[in-house]
Amino acid sequence: MAALTLHPDRLLPADPGVRSIARRLYAEVQGLPIISPHGHVDPRLILDDRPFVDPASLFIQPDHYVTRLLHSGGVPLTDLGVGEGPLPEPRAREAWRLFCANWQLLRGTPVRFWFESSLADVFGVSERPSAHNADALYDQIAEQLGRDSHRPRALLERFDIAFLATTDDPADDLAAHRALREDESIATRIAPTFRPDRYLEAGRPGWAELVKELGGDVGDYAGYIAALEERRRYFISLGAVSADHGHVDAGTEPLGIREAERIYRSALAGTVTPREALAFRRHMTFEMARMSCDDGLVMTLHPGIWRNHHPATLAAHGPDTGHDIPVALELTAALQPLLDRFGTHPNLHLVLFTVDPDVYSREIAPLAGFYPSVYAGAPWWFLDNPSEIRRYQRAVTEIAGFSRLSGFIDDTRAFCSIPARHDMSRRLDAGFLAGLVAEHRLEEDEALDTLTGLVVTQPREVFKL
Amino acid sequence: MAALTLHPDRLLPADPGVRSIARRLYAEVQGLPIISPHGHVDPRLILDDRPFVDPASLFIQPDHYVTRLLHSGGVPLTDLGVGEGPLPEPRAREAWRLFCANWQLLRGTPVRFWFESSLADVFGVSERPSAHNADALYDQIAEQLGRDSHRPRALLERFDIAFLATTDDPADDLAAHRALREDESIATRIAPTFRPDRYLEAGRPGWAELVKELGGDVGDYAGYIAALEERRRYFISLGAVSADHGHVDAGTEPLGIREAERIYRSALAGTVTPREALAFRRHMTFEMARMSCDDGLVMTLHPGIWRNHHPATLAAHGPDTGHDIPVALELTAALQPLLDRFGTHPNLHLVLFTVDPDVYSREIAPLAGFYPSVYAGAPWWFLDNPSEIRRYQRAVTEIAGFSRLSGFIDDTRAFCSIPARHDMSRRLDAGFLAGLVAEHRLEEDEALDTLTGLVVTQPREVFKL
Amino acid sequence: MAALTLHPDRLLPADPGVRSIARRLYAEVQGLPIISPHGHVDPRLILDDRPFVDPASLFIQPDHYVTRLLHSGGVPLTDLGVGEGPLPEPRAREAWRLFCANWQLLRGTPVRFWFESSLADVFGVSERPSAHNADALYDQIAEQLGRDSHRPRALLERFDIAFLATTDDPADDLAAHRALREDESIATRIAPTFRPDRYLEAGRPGWAELVKELGGDVGDYAGYIAALEERRRYFISLGAVSADHGHVDAGTEPLGIREAERIYRSALAGTVTPREALAFRRHMTFEMARMSCDDGLVMTLHPGIWRNHHPATLAAHGPDTGHDIPVALELTAALQPLLDRFGTHPNLHLVLFTVDPDVYSREIAPLAGFYPSVYAGAPWWFLDNPSEIRRYQRAVTEIAGFSRLSGFIDDTRAFCSIPARHDMSRRLDAGFLAGLVAEHRLEEDEALDTLTGLVVTQPREVFKL
Repeated sequence: MAALTLHPDRLLPADPGVRSIARRLYAEVQGLPIISPHGHVDPRLILDDRPFVDPASLFIQPDHYVTRLLHSGGVPLTDLGVGEGPLPEPRAREAWRLFCANWQLLRGTPVRFWFESSLADVFGVSERPSAHNADALYDQIAEQLGRDSHRPRALLERFDIAFLATTDDPADDLAAHRALREDESIATRIAPTFRPDRYLEAGRPGWAELVKELGGDVGDYAGYIAALEERRRYFISLGAVSADHGHVDAGTEPLGIREAERIYRSALAGTVTPREALAFRRHMTFEMARMSCDDGLVMTLHPGIWRNHHPATLAAHGPDTGHDIPVALELTAALQPLLDRFGTHPNLHLVLFTVDPDVYSREIAPLAGFYPSVYAGAPWWFLDNPSEIRRYQRAVTEIAGFSRLSGFIDDTRAFCSIPARHDMSRRLDAGFLAGLVAEHRLEEDEALDTLTGLVVTQPREVFKL
Repeated sequence: MAALTLHPDRLLPADPGVRSIARRLYAEVQGLPIISPHGHVDPRLILDDRPFVDPASLFIQPDHYVTRLLHSGGVPLTDLGVGEGPLPEPRAREAWRLFCANWQLLRGTPVRFWFESSLADVFGVSERPSAHNADALYDQIAEQLGRDSHRPRALLERFDIAFLATTDDPADDLAAHRALREDESIATRIAPTFRPDRYLEAGRPGWAELVKELGGDVGDYAGYIAALEERRRYFISLGAVSADHGHVDAGTEPLGIREAERIYRSALAGTVTPREALAFRRHMTFEMARMSCDDGLVMTLHPGIWRNHHPATLAAHGPDTGHDIPVALELTAALQPLLDRFGTHPNLHLVLFTVDPDVYSREIAPLAGFYPSVYAGAPWWFLDNPSEIRRYQRAVTEIAGFSRLSGFIDDTRAFCSIPARHDMSRRLDAGFLAGLVAEHRLEEDEALDTLTGLVVTQPREVFKL
Repeated sequence: MAALTLHPDRLLPADPGVRSIARRLYAEVQGLPIISPHGHVDPRLILDDRPFVDPASLFIQPDHYVTRLLHSGGVPLTDLGVGEGPLPEPRAREAWRLFCANWQLLRGTPVRFWFESSLADVFGVSERPSAHNADALYDQIAEQLGRDSHRPRALLERFDIAFLATTDDPADDLAAHRALREDESIATRIAPTFRPDRYLEAGRPGWAELVKELGGDVGDYAGYIAALEERRRYFISLGAVSADHGHVDAGTEPLGIREAERIYRSALAGTVTPREALAFRRHMTFEMARMSCDDGLVMTLHPGIWRNHHPATLAAHGPDTGHDIPVALELTAALQPLLDRFGTHPNLHLVLFTVDPDVYSREIAPLAGFYPSVYAGAPWWFLDNPSEIRRYQRAVTEIAGFSRLSGFIDDTRAFCSIPARHDMSRRLDAGFLAGLVAEHRLEEDEALDTLTGLVVTQPREVFKL
């Protein structure tokens, strides 16, 4: 049986001289608390603090990073219970077996790193998963899941997560967040995030009904705007620090008030055209920036994704099941109206993410290297892997310096992978900075100061913590 | 006279620690047989087994990689005999002299690597080509070309090519392939490839005449479809495993049957508009995927090229003379209709190539990392060089793992370069995997298993050999 | 106080084996004269040879590389005197203090390298700038600026600049250039560059008046063409070797003569539409290539920039203040008409620059690897940093070889940074070539020959010096 061991130097540069610098740098930040300003953990997970049910529901079913790799390797999502709640034990065990038997599909991916770290660090696994030891590993993990030491709150504390943001619907009553705030036993600061995408897309089926969920009098455009502003205030009152936006493009061309009102009326009447709905959504993205200047919520943009590329999978297993596929992204023109108006506004923090990596050099770094409001968001979704993180580091810092980086964002719904994801980032940051020191582009004291900034100071400043 | 020597470590990583791992890995696959599932060798070359005529017709005239570099350096294509058959000896020798005198133009390119390997390994050349030794090298090579040991079949055996696919017109009678299959003295499995591009482009001049070459009753759309299906069956009967498609974009939007029939009639009548022809070709690409699901031919896509960018060169020297230039590529939207319908079909193997390298990270790896039918084709045309191959390795494997790589494809019409091209790939794969081992992201036993898979297992599985 | 020291190995590869090769190569070119075929130094600076006024006006105010970084870090451009002439001493000193106090914003950027080199090599600074030593450094530099040794001509000689091109308006009388040519005390060859952008953009406000500045009878299209040709001849008579073009796209579709005449008349009448003006400008870019074939001026293209992205900054501080932002670039189709007609013309040298780095692999290298007229311009504006230069080196040379590189172009208005910029380039070229030697892809004698070519021969050939 092959061993699973976590080498202390993993992901550090191979060159011995650079590695020794990287080791020194990494050692200084390895143990710092985790700040997670954007992610998808369900707040009720922490609130309820129920034990995780089984290895499959913890590690496989909800994690589209894992399930898409297995799916591409020929494993049907149905066999993995994707989109279902916890499975009966035989099915959960079978899903786990499929995972272990296909362990080789993870080679070379960051999922492998995250998984190894979680298995070894959280559950003491010391064997490489395979068809042969799948059942034994299942039992080993399942046994620990029953212990208090492995319930969500215990892990939250063990992972040393200082700040954790969730992602929430504007109409959510945030009851879980309210309860969490009142619970003094939780050391982690947990905050909601305002994610209004569907309320801005006026061409969606049933939109007239949907906007009513915002509350208030949404019978006209002014009321709709007021309702959004009110919901933002509510989120802020419960700790929110940011609003997140994820439309297919990043357009921000504002409309005249008359035109906005007219399209809003058409949308309520169900007669809006796709072209009008598009113009309205771009207008509303501009409005969201305006509100961010007013109320201070950090604005994060996650554009450039074709959601649910495979409709049959959407129908069978729901969204977020691994087939959100990037498209080419354009920001320079799309964001120009927003930045023209608000780009130097002292209240605006605009964090730009991309899944089109050429955009780091071509647009994000140049924008972040001029506008004081713009930050380069850490590599996201498909790009949160060592090579693309290294590309991002080089591309952004050589154009805009280190001060324009957002700091790391894990963006995950896989709870146990949070420390491993941050650890990967710290290792890669240490390695990158060590390379600059080795090439005599930075002194080691500067590199250490920069690294600490990236891990602690930068996310606090960018997300106004 | 400067020496030409093949260093055993060439193309392996420079870092001594990584290199020693890479050496161990490479040693295990260096001698494995070659599988070449896509290329442009003429089957009659093998069938006839005539000696190569001279160094120019072997190495220069047909190889647009070489001639474009010389051309960009100021050598007229006419002086190289591009687009001509074998030249009279004085002209062949003069072309060879021009090549040797401009040897420095190859510095830094993979052509240099391929050439050095071919010259040293196949012809025992031990001096760096130059104006001074051009005639001596010509004579040295020409003398060997007259020997039995250097005729095509002897080289095929010496190169240890287990499988060799050619690229063929659907109307080809495949007489050469038929004869090759009947010749038991040939150990290599040689297969045709179905390449229907021009039969799908209804706006081409003379198209109504062209489709008649498919045979059958092509007087209506149904007959045309049936004729294509029949030609595919014929190709399969003679060993074909794949169909290759190379249009400027990758659109696959299907038409309704009435619309397809209508456009087909217009095309036969010569009244089709460019817009209709475009829609029809995209529809037919969708149909080709449908046929691949039915008959099992692997579908390979080589989109994103502006063919014959310099019309004067096309007129003087013909196609494939070095001025097919890439354009930006989009796949996520273009392939969505095809993948919506066939993306999880068990019979479909869809291998995606690109000459727009950003597309590896942005689209190909994400698609291959979800759809079990999609494979990331090896770097092609301008991208088949060490840096771009390394980018491809990183970009695809960190998103989709190793199992979604197509394995190496040489895509060449330069017969003597085949082993050097595969050797380059093996060296780069070994080096990449060694880097993962050195960073403790993979154990060495896994790296070796992966490398062997890339060289042997993967191409066999992807191309259903 | 932290020391500022210039390590002799800075920017050379970290691997000890590769570094030792790089050191040997670099040592051979470190001291060669500088050839600067494209830049933005004001010729009157050399002509007048007045002492630089103060550290702020020398190092900060005119250098948008520096001011944009400070601006993104929160320093208002007004506090830096951007767009103003020399400041009163208290304000100049305050700008310098802001710069020193924000020294950390430069970490990781090439600006840091240029600045360190200038401070240490030109002014003997040996302390890292900070809020604490800002005044002392100001005084140290200001004192030296008063010396003859630090006046422009003395520095020009000390920097060993053999050739220096400026960038000039076609209507400029080039009086400074005329005077410089007559001054035999200047060893540097100083040449104007023809930059006609605004004279080709017929939709600009006031264009009818503007074209009159060209002189001649510009009342009709023929006269306008003749006037441009005449101004080019005038520039050539005063030493110009190139014409530079910087429109947002690279379109070169020619118009029929009737259509060109018609649009020209509309433009004079002030009734031209944006669409017509666009077509006319693309036509005129084609015409510029035609003129380059006639008169021999090298044609350089700097497309793909959204100029003055932040209008409020333009209004307050003028153009070239750090918010020219890249947009996606397309060249294959855009340049096809030009290359179809002139691509193999012996007089044409077309140097292609991009700020969209994916275009190096996708379009520029493939074009340069076929057309003898096309050269790949060195990384420009945001891309003139180590990582992007390394990407450019790999991307272009592996496709097109070394002979298609333009040689380094500093493109700067920051006079004191010229030697540091060329030094960075030489170090990176040495490092890149050393990597090829270490991987046994090139012999060291070839690497040295190539490096010398890049530094000396190539710019001379490409720019016809």
